[in-house]
Amino acid sequence: MTDTAELTILGISGSLRKGSFNTALLRAATTLAPPGMHIALYDELALLPPYDEDVRAQGFPAIVAQWRERIRQADGLLIATPEYNRSIPGVLKNAIDWASRPPEQPFAGKPAAVIGATPGAVGTALAQYHLRQVLAAVDVTVLPGAELMVGAATAKFDEQGQLTDEPTRQHLARYLTRLRDLVQQRRRMPEQ
Amino acid sequence: MTDTAELTILGISGSLRKGSFNTALLRAATTLAPPGMHIALYDELALLPPYDEDVRAQGFPAIVAQWRERIRQADGLLIATPEYNRSIPGVLKNAIDWASRPPEQPFAGKPAAVIGATPGAVGTALAQYHLRQVLAAVDVTVLPGAELMVGAATAKFDEQGQLTDEPTRQHLARYLTRLRDLVQQRRRMPEQ
Amino acid sequence: MTDTAELTILGISGSLRKGSFNTALLRAATTLAPPGMHIALYDELALLPPYDEDVRAQGFPAIVAQWRERIRQADGLLIATPEYNRSIPGVLKNAIDWASRPPEQPFAGKPAAVIGATPGAVGTALAQYHLRQVLAAVDVTVLPGAELMVGAATAKFDEQGQLTDEPTRQHLARYLTRLRDLVQQRRRMPEQ
Amino acid sequence: MTDTAELTILGISGSLRKGSFNTALLRAATTLAPPGMHIALYDELALLPPYDEDVRAQGFPAIVAQWRERIRQADGLLIATPEYNRSIPGVLKNAIDWASRPPEQPFAGKPAAVIGATPGAVGTALAQYHLRQVLAAVDVTVLPGAELMVGAATAKFDEQGQLTDEPTRQHLARYLTRLRDLVQQRRRMPEQ
Repeated sequence: MTDTAELTILGISGSLRKGSFNTALLRAATTLAPPGMHIALYDELALLPPYDEDVRAQGFPAIVAQWRERIRQADGLLIATPEYNRSIPGVLKNAIDWASRPPEQPFAGKPAAVIGATPGAVGTALAQYHLRQVLAAVDVTVLPGAELMVGAATAKFDEQGQLTDEPTRQHLARYLTRLRDLVQQRRRMPEQ
Repeated sequence: MTDTAELTILGISGSLRKGSFNTALLRAATTLAPPGMHIALYDELALLPPYDEDVRAQGFPAIVAQWRERIRQADGLLIATPEYNRSIPGVLKNAIDWASRPPEQPFAGKPAAVIGATPGAVGTALAQYHLRQVLAAVDVTVLPGAELMVGAATAKFDEQGQLTDEPTRQHLARYLTRLRDLVQQRRRMPEQ
Repeated sequence: MTDTAELTILGISGSLRKGSFNTALLRAATTLAPPGMHIALYDELALLPPYDEDVRAQGFPAIVAQWRERIRQADGLLIATPEYNRSIPGVLKNAIDWASRPPEQPFAGKPAAVIGATPGAVGTALAQYHLRQVLAAVDVTVLPGAELMVGAATAKFDEQGQLTDEPTRQHLARYLTRLRDLVQQRRRMPEQ
Repeated sequence: MTDTAELTILGISGSLRKGSFNTALLRAATTLAPPGMHIALYDELALLPPYDEDVRAQGFPAIVAQWRERIRQADGLLIATPEYNRSIPGVLKNAIDWASRPPEQPFAGKPAAVIGATPGAVGTALAQYHLRQVLAAVDVTVLPGAELMVGAATAKFDEQGQLTDEPTRQHLARYLTRLRDLVQQRRRMPEQ
């Protein structure tokens, strides 16, 4: 594998709503990704069953096994999270709970970036920091010192869900470049 | 309604596993509740669909409406949470996400206590504090200054899931008495 | 003590800066307090030494003893916190650390409200929720389901530090009324 | 700079108490560091004044400038934090607040590891995760997927403060090796 190979980033939206600003933000990211980086969206979060250890003991359901494989194959993650009740959606946490379980742990060592959008002012800050805590616990390295919290989203996307706010577009593009650099650095590292 | 009426507490376990220490802790709580307080367990968390705002806009699914009604009718809540990836289970958060949505918000003004058990050492501390943050956001008053974190659970429950550790039983009984007192105080308050 | 006695609330700003928006917000609160509630500001946070258990073992320094007494005498607390590095200022936490230590614990059972202001967008959300966690740990009951996060503060205060934004003034006034109600409810409770 | 140069790690204890388990844990770390890594302890936390933006605007006090320089010169950080009121000590946060301020930000890009010890059971878990959040905000990369939480510390150190518990010693040694690897990886990276 060389640096010229394209990096694949798995994009995950924590919202199931069709008109979700977070899903729209991820779609914008797919068009703003820097050269050498491709963002593919995972869109089956709603199909994952509720995590149950007794079920897991019988073997991962097929849809869960596919979700885990998508993570395993990705070079990095880009997660867009809404904020529900000052934390991340249960749906998103449930997906992480399934993926984090043994035997192998597909998150281990992955780089990631966390983003979020909201019509409100606070910009998903609390959800994003809860998510960072959870990701640290599953051995994901989140871009430090960088945040992308899109408040007042109603004015920044058009009616078709296109991200039209130019400063946000530029911020997102820079953010994705930082993610690419982080992913490339980790790929260059000698095996431990 | 008078103080002599029995208080009903809704007990909720964040784990779906049949042999769950958290569910066992809740069952122990039902037998250790002080006079005047009855703890009824909610056991349909696994049936709640993934929260989707587009679904909600069509009306709450029947199982969700029932869950919301159970909360509405309760005088208080007792939540036992395992710790998954340094936070609460997605399944538990998903249930809270459904219950927190308008029009009426059934959690509003409810008193609650948070407990948790784990075979490990740390005793669900991080999950409990994430849960407290979420509960504050949905206008639930959690017992302040009190914690019940059961570590090393394997040695404190027998093979039938009975809580046999006497210090933990006493701690739990005192905790439940504090919850009863908090609930009674709130029932005595004049309407706002 | 009767309900007609005036309630005394201790106002604490986490910022030492003279032109602090958080201190200005507290000053605005003193003028917007509802009937029956007086807010007195504590302004010696900068004088508290760094918490050191070896020092405490020799006895609380006089300035610390006074700080603890101010809390003990208050009927409730109103804390305005800036956000430094996505949490509360060390200076504010240090003051809480001193106050929380035995023998008696002056915070125990106090009601409180948490507020904050910032020139930025996110409005001290992360600091406020860290503070709530800390306050829960020292047995303080924070107003649940209520938040006051003042973003874009530069436009909401005039050059003399007066809170001029009318919606924020009304929000703050309602918030203080909720705090008063919470404090009164607790004073009406029978002793435990 | 080559890989054979020794790495310097700045060790910081959040406790000022002379007999602190956290300071003792750091001292143990100095003797368990892997080849190629030297841990130097910073022991002037108690001398840092309370953070005040008006003071900073006049220029950093000498002791603060020295603290910032110590961070700047270090290849990485090792922070041992006690847990006070379910978060980090105000004293430690105050030191971070001073270091994080412009013009240059000495924490930027540093790798770090977080550890903690307590006589209690929970092992500083909540403090450690608050600290991780703060460190992420100041652009520090904390070892993901790794934790070192020493509970029941009284039985693991002798009366002279020597870490005598062999499993903890081995855990700490492995942890330090992971920190060294993280620091080395970052030194090998091309400049951005």
